[in-house]
Amino acid sequence: MLTVNAYGATSATEPLAPLTVERRDLGPHDVLIDIKFAGICHSDIHTARGEWGATNYPVVPGHEIAGVVAEVGSEVTKHAVGDRVGVGCMVDSCRECENCLKGEEQYCLKGNIGTYNAVGKDGQPTQGGYSTHVVVTEDFVLRIPEGLELDVAAPLLCAGVTLFSPLNHWGAGPGKRVAIIGLGGLGHMGVKIAHAMGAEVTVLSQSLKKQEDGLRLGADHYYATSDPDVFTDLAGSFDLIVNTVSATIDLDAYLGLLAVNGTLVEVGAPEKPMTVAAFSLIPNRRSLAGSMIGGIAETQQMLDFCAEHGLGAEIEVIAADKINEAYDRVVASDVRYRFVVDTSTLG
Amino acid sequence: MLTVNAYGATSATEPLAPLTVERRDLGPHDVLIDIKFAGICHSDIHTARGEWGATNYPVVPGHEIAGVVAEVGSEVTKHAVGDRVGVGCMVDSCRECENCLKGEEQYCLKGNIGTYNAVGKDGQPTQGGYSTHVVVTEDFVLRIPEGLELDVAAPLLCAGVTLFSPLNHWGAGPGKRVAIIGLGGLGHMGVKIAHAMGAEVTVLSQSLKKQEDGLRLGADHYYATSDPDVFTDLAGSFDLIVNTVSATIDLDAYLGLLAVNGTLVEVGAPEKPMTVAAFSLIPNRRSLAGSMIGGIAETQQMLDFCAEHGLGAEIEVIAADKINEAYDRVVASDVRYRFVVDTSTLG
Repeated sequence: MLTVNAYGATSATEPLAPLTVERRDLGPHDVLIDIKFAGICHSDIHTARGEWGATNYPVVPGHEIAGVVAEVGSEVTKHAVGDRVGVGCMVDSCRECENCLKGEEQYCLKGNIGTYNAVGKDGQPTQGGYSTHVVVTEDFVLRIPEGLELDVAAPLLCAGVTLFSPLNHWGAGPGKRVAIIGLGGLGHMGVKIAHAMGAEVTVLSQSLKKQEDGLRLGADHYYATSDPDVFTDLAGSFDLIVNTVSATIDLDAYLGLLAVNGTLVEVGAPEKPMTVAAFSLIPNRRSLAGSMIGGIAETQQMLDFCAEHGLGAEIEVIAADKINEAYDRVVASDVRYRFVVDTSTLG
Repeated sequence: MLTVNAYGATSATEPLAPLTVERRDLGPHDVLIDIKFAGICHSDIHTARGEWGATNYPVVPGHEIAGVVAEVGSEVTKHAVGDRVGVGCMVDSCRECENCLKGEEQYCLKGNIGTYNAVGKDGQPTQGGYSTHVVVTEDFVLRIPEGLELDVAAPLLCAGVTLFSPLNHWGAGPGKRVAIIGLGGLGHMGVKIAHAMGAEVTVLSQSLKKQEDGLRLGADHYYATSDPDVFTDLAGSFDLIVNTVSATIDLDAYLGLLAVNGTLVEVGAPEKPMTVAAFSLIPNRRSLAGSMIGGIAETQQMLDFCAEHGLGAEIEVIAADKINEAYDRVVASDVRYRFVVDTSTLG
């Protein structure tokens, strides 16, 4: 067992604080990663604050992990010491169900094993990336290609693949009209990736405050949804809309923006049930769908794609002792566009 | 102008009664159809009774029309006197919009012209198939292939294509697990068509009352959804679910039955807004979609498919003076599975 420095929550109400966690001894297929950077995802905050039901404290959040391989188990073939690697939201899955066999481990029918606040196959709680080291089975460790800096790569492991997967699945590319609702940690990656895929990209944001950023990141158009004319002017004009906003929105209004065979994909996981009229879906044969991160192979595909196109996240790097402050700023949407913890500050 | 016998509603509250309507003189591209049979669709009842907003009385319902060509305009090339033909829910569309140009006239962006309770391009109200004759522009007249009797073909023009289109669009076929919710006028055609496409077909009905019928029509499995165990036993086991029921159902429960990339398609048009949790869609990358009849080319494809596979509707043929009684029985779900009016009884 390796005892490592980390930063985590001991209860729903206390701020996060320094602590230590145990990492298991390397099994034959395990990889020990020297974590360099860990992105801060809104899910981290929900879990740390106990907002998504049962959190097992203490919990070390962080599922946007980038680092370097420090040691490998005796039978590891996929990674070598010194390799630049990443870990996302999953550290294992059943590997046997219909979905795992299709490479859709994120939809593992037995439940994949989350990077934190889950229980590993060793029976021990999993702990995430706000930490100096982590041990992960080689099949769930991704290669970070040359040309992608580790700090801007970290958020790709969750935010990047969360957008890449639906854009890829629903065929964003040349001739496709894609809208991204919300320009935050998820949305800004959606704009970059959809643009790199060759789609015509529109940002639908509450206001025009981030318009300059949106256009710089690759959007062709930018609209403020506070203007009700937007919903008549853009009626029927998108093939794919990805909603990254978890607040309740008027889904019927947004569905009206879809062209024939268009799909609106939810990735932001609103907590309250959504309301939708059948007559918002039936005209134009529209779909309302959901999507959750991506499979391991698709996550690697996304990293390779981002490296090829020079895409990283827009980040603000912080020391570990700024995590609590960063949490408040994420909740207030006051970050452009992702906080990344420099884990060298964990001491 | 041709004055023809018909059966229609003069107000929302009076029973339907005999009346006459005018059919326009044949334009160069028009076809005069001697109507033989007209199916009774639930939409007819909603319109006759003013339940779907503004109905322009008098209205002659009927958009499941089968007959024989009696006369053709000077430039008609697609149909000849004596041809067996059908007319569905549309008698024209703008023919210019993005959707019409794709052959998706049912989603015409300017609104297609309904077979009844609409206004034709001549500025006159359209009147439907509970009538001895109708004049329709040749492009919206379908061929009824040899081997399909006109009485069992009539309901294909709405009920048939309403199910064929989503089954076709979402790829029902060998290896696909398809569930049909509700075994009524729409659902029974869904079972027949999905079975003929080669899919594994399951009926999800409130009770087992129609189980024998369902299996005879082509279902491989039949479950009563009044048994809550059904929703755990069948979790994640369908690729496509078509909901033909317009009453409110627990969508989250049914979405839980979808496998990865599965779609639940609404064709029954519930009047009340639907409620759905994002977390019913996000696992398994599920979709909730809508679909409305089918385009003209697809309707012809459906008729050819049904003829090839010997599929007609299960019908009860009635005289026109039984239409009011039939309406009450449709509302009470007391028909197996479609009423068809014999228009020779219109006098």
